[in-house]
Amino acid sequence: MDNGKLTIRKRKTLSDQLYGQILEQIVSGALKQGEKLPSENRICTAFGVSRPVVREALRKLQDDGLVEARRGVGSFVRKRPPQRLIEFAAADSVSDLMRAMEARMVVEKATARLAAQRAGSREIAKIEAALKTLENAMQRRETALDADFDFHLAIAEASGNHAFVTMLSAIREVMERTIDVAQSLTREGSQARIDRVTQEHRQIYEAIIARDVDAAGLTMAYHLLQARQRVTDYAREV
Amino acid sequence: MDNGKLTIRKRKTLSDQLYGQILEQIVSGALKQGEKLPSENRICTAFGVSRPVVREALRKLQDDGLVEARRGVGSFVRKRPPQRLIEFAAADSVSDLMRAMEARMVVEKATARLAAQRAGSREIAKIEAALKTLENAMQRRETALDADFDFHLAIAEASGNHAFVTMLSAIREVMERTIDVAQSLTREGSQARIDRVTQEHRQIYEAIIARDVDAAGLTMAYHLLQARQRVTDYAREV
Amino acid sequence: MDNGKLTIRKRKTLSDQLYGQILEQIVSGALKQGEKLPSENRICTAFGVSRPVVREALRKLQDDGLVEARRGVGSFVRKRPPQRLIEFAAADSVSDLMRAMEARMVVEKATARLAAQRAGSREIAKIEAALKTLENAMQRRETALDADFDFHLAIAEASGNHAFVTMLSAIREVMERTIDVAQSLTREGSQARIDRVTQEHRQIYEAIIARDVDAAGLTMAYHLLQARQRVTDYAREV
Amino acid sequence: MDNGKLTIRKRKTLSDQLYGQILEQIVSGALKQGEKLPSENRICTAFGVSRPVVREALRKLQDDGLVEARRGVGSFVRKRPPQRLIEFAAADSVSDLMRAMEARMVVEKATARLAAQRAGSREIAKIEAALKTLENAMQRRETALDADFDFHLAIAEASGNHAFVTMLSAIREVMERTIDVAQSLTREGSQARIDRVTQEHRQIYEAIIARDVDAAGLTMAYHLLQARQRVTDYAREV
Repeated sequence: MDNGKLTIRKRKTLSDQLYGQILEQIVSGALKQGEKLPSENRICTAFGVSRPVVREALRKLQDDGLVEARRGVGSFVRKRPPQRLIEFAAADSVSDLMRAMEARMVVEKATARLAAQRAGSREIAKIEAALKTLENAMQRRETALDADFDFHLAIAEASGNHAFVTMLSAIREVMERTIDVAQSLTREGSQARIDRVTQEHRQIYEAIIARDVDAAGLTMAYHLLQARQRVTDYAREV
Repeated sequence: MDNGKLTIRKRKTLSDQLYGQILEQIVSGALKQGEKLPSENRICTAFGVSRPVVREALRKLQDDGLVEARRGVGSFVRKRPPQRLIEFAAADSVSDLMRAMEARMVVEKATARLAAQRAGSREIAKIEAALKTLENAMQRRETALDADFDFHLAIAEASGNHAFVTMLSAIREVMERTIDVAQSLTREGSQARIDRVTQEHRQIYEAIIARDVDAAGLTMAYHLLQARQRVTDYAREV
Repeated sequence: MDNGKLTIRKRKTLSDQLYGQILEQIVSGALKQGEKLPSENRICTAFGVSRPVVREALRKLQDDGLVEARRGVGSFVRKRPPQRLIEFAAADSVSDLMRAMEARMVVEKATARLAAQRAGSREIAKIEAALKTLENAMQRRETALDADFDFHLAIAEASGNHAFVTMLSAIREVMERTIDVAQSLTREGSQARIDRVTQEHRQIYEAIIARDVDAAGLTMAYHLLQARQRVTDYAREV
Repeated sequence: MDNGKLTIRKRKTLSDQLYGQILEQIVSGALKQGEKLPSENRICTAFGVSRPVVREALRKLQDDGLVEARRGVGSFVRKRPPQRLIEFAAADSVSDLMRAMEARMVVEKATARLAAQRAGSREIAKIEAALKTLENAMQRRETALDADFDFHLAIAEASGNHAFVTMLSAIREVMERTIDVAQSLTREGSQARIDRVTQEHRQIYEAIIARDVDAAGLTMAYHLLQARQRVTDYAREV
């Protein structure tokens, strides 16, 4: 048994399992875009779970932009994620993936800002090397899981604060799965999408070397927001 | 051998060792408040380290508010930290402590904001229980290391995002040392200081139960900023 | 007729009038702390306004921490503001006051951060002069409206961005009324409250001269948050 | 005499005049990309201004990404802005334009976030109408100054906080000039650039109607950052 990588949590919470089951129905088209979800009561009965569990699952689907709540009316399907999302990650672990994206947005906005302030020439060389490997692989439509992770980790290292490196390393497994899903969608996407993803990474790098603290944080947060939207929206072009 | 807790890093970097040695001289009074530090060149020679190492150490002392750089003139001692700071933590690990405070400010501002949005009654009960234990211990001037850590972890759990719990757990040891230093200073401080620290925790809790997202993030960030200033400023009253 | 000062808006919106009327009942004690407000339907009928107007008024009372909504149950009075709040400002203009506080939190967090980066010795002298005048007046329990406004404007000037000065000047009248209410409450408060308010201003000034960008923004935002809570909470000690 | 519009300030500061003169030399190519600027001393002598004035002008050029400071070496030209920038706006007022962009980033990030929380159907209809007018005009390469301003003002109105509307109205003239420069560059740019600018506006609108508070603030800040970079970088493709 390979214990080399730690999973964030072994057992999925009930709300994340329910999240996964509703997600599968949206991905398969059993629940169509714009369609109203069953009422909280009916979901409770159908899945044999309590109301707080249903509310938590719906709240998470809403936070992730997949479902929309209309006050006093109910919840509606907002976006259909690509099939890939539940192929790469078991449906009941997608909620964890999305939460990891949320946490990365907080932490990596900070690491990018600090890197723009503190990165020395050695740290910048490392970020640049990872970026180049990533760009080459993406243009050839090859996987570049390590280069992508290295790019983000090199920025954390350049923050001059090892606690951030420790934090990202602690969620490395789930972080790699978010990268995996995003990259596989990009590889199969249009050249325009490949160019956009490449450009998003390059903008972060350029803000860091320009020592533009606000731009570094902003382009990082924007990149992660776009990544989240790409993995949850089937119809998205770029 | 007890491997129950992981240290962040085994070996201290050269810049953190140099940071510790300058810090010791400030704490002992060998370098007085307002006094000019030796030039970068002289520090290089005296400690046998390269200029980038000196610059990194000075930059960190500056980021921590202990030293101030005057353009074209040099670096000056800004604040004298209490003796406690280097008793509790070896001087060469204080830099790690301060970096952990910086990372906590980023992560815990986010967890407090999310807790104000998402905490259920069970999560709130946990935060409240830790707060009460902490308040009682502080008023009796007893140690309450666990209650303090529990308070902050309970807020992370209430964020509805397990990745944040994983991240804080990953820096638990260094986080506990920051709490340890701060608490021991508070216990020996005036009643006014004890009341202030108690009130800071209570404000965070009240913002969370009031569902005031901005206030929750702001009072948490303010609390951690004050904690950082208390552990670095000998002369500070509250 | 004195047209020297422009009011933000001549006519109050319906929702701000309704806000004012509910506020008056909370201040007078006709609606007690913890008491449930009438249903949206009953408010519509009682005041002859549409449901969106009622919802907007309730949402604002909630944003200001005066009322709390419990999902599927209704709205409850959370805090009773001091009588002063509606003596100084007509009840139907209190909503505008609170919105001005919200806007100030955004703009002045930015001006304090930029001042910590850019203030020259002349700008710092101006901030310091206003601070000293303010502290002296507060300790003697005298009004210091101008000194308070000058302190905040001097920080905006020190931001090196005149657009922020223009923006604050554009809301000067309503900004002065927020200061007026806050100061009159402080003057009549305990010595502890006077010391706290003094300390809040001093912390901002110290963060700026220490060139601590994060601390400057944080202490400014915290000060304005506390000011908002002081003007809305009768029972608050400091 | 037409007093319909107020200028932010009548007289330009010395540092903004100096900013304008250095800018003209960069735009004309007299100072080339990568070239070292004269020393602070030489600029003092050449323009007959004091050292603080020179430092302020250089710091602003640096903040705007046009010049880069290398510690202990000097300042270097980083980017060459398009000719348009000083045709539309007198060179000595470009610094004001850039400061207005900085202030807009702060204020409009907040208005977009609040609009995502508070916009009613009427406010959303207004944002949408402005967006459609803007998109149509841009695709036909026509000017759409009013539609662009209306889009941003409608978002401020949807924030439910009139103080923000007052603030943006107070800097309307300089805000319109920033829009004017940006639009004229877009009109003459590639179809790819027109599509990007259109998409940036649409993303803000979509985040608002999706009630995604973070995405609304982030896409607004990103749009304004990109706009700032487009007006300062001649070589930029999109």
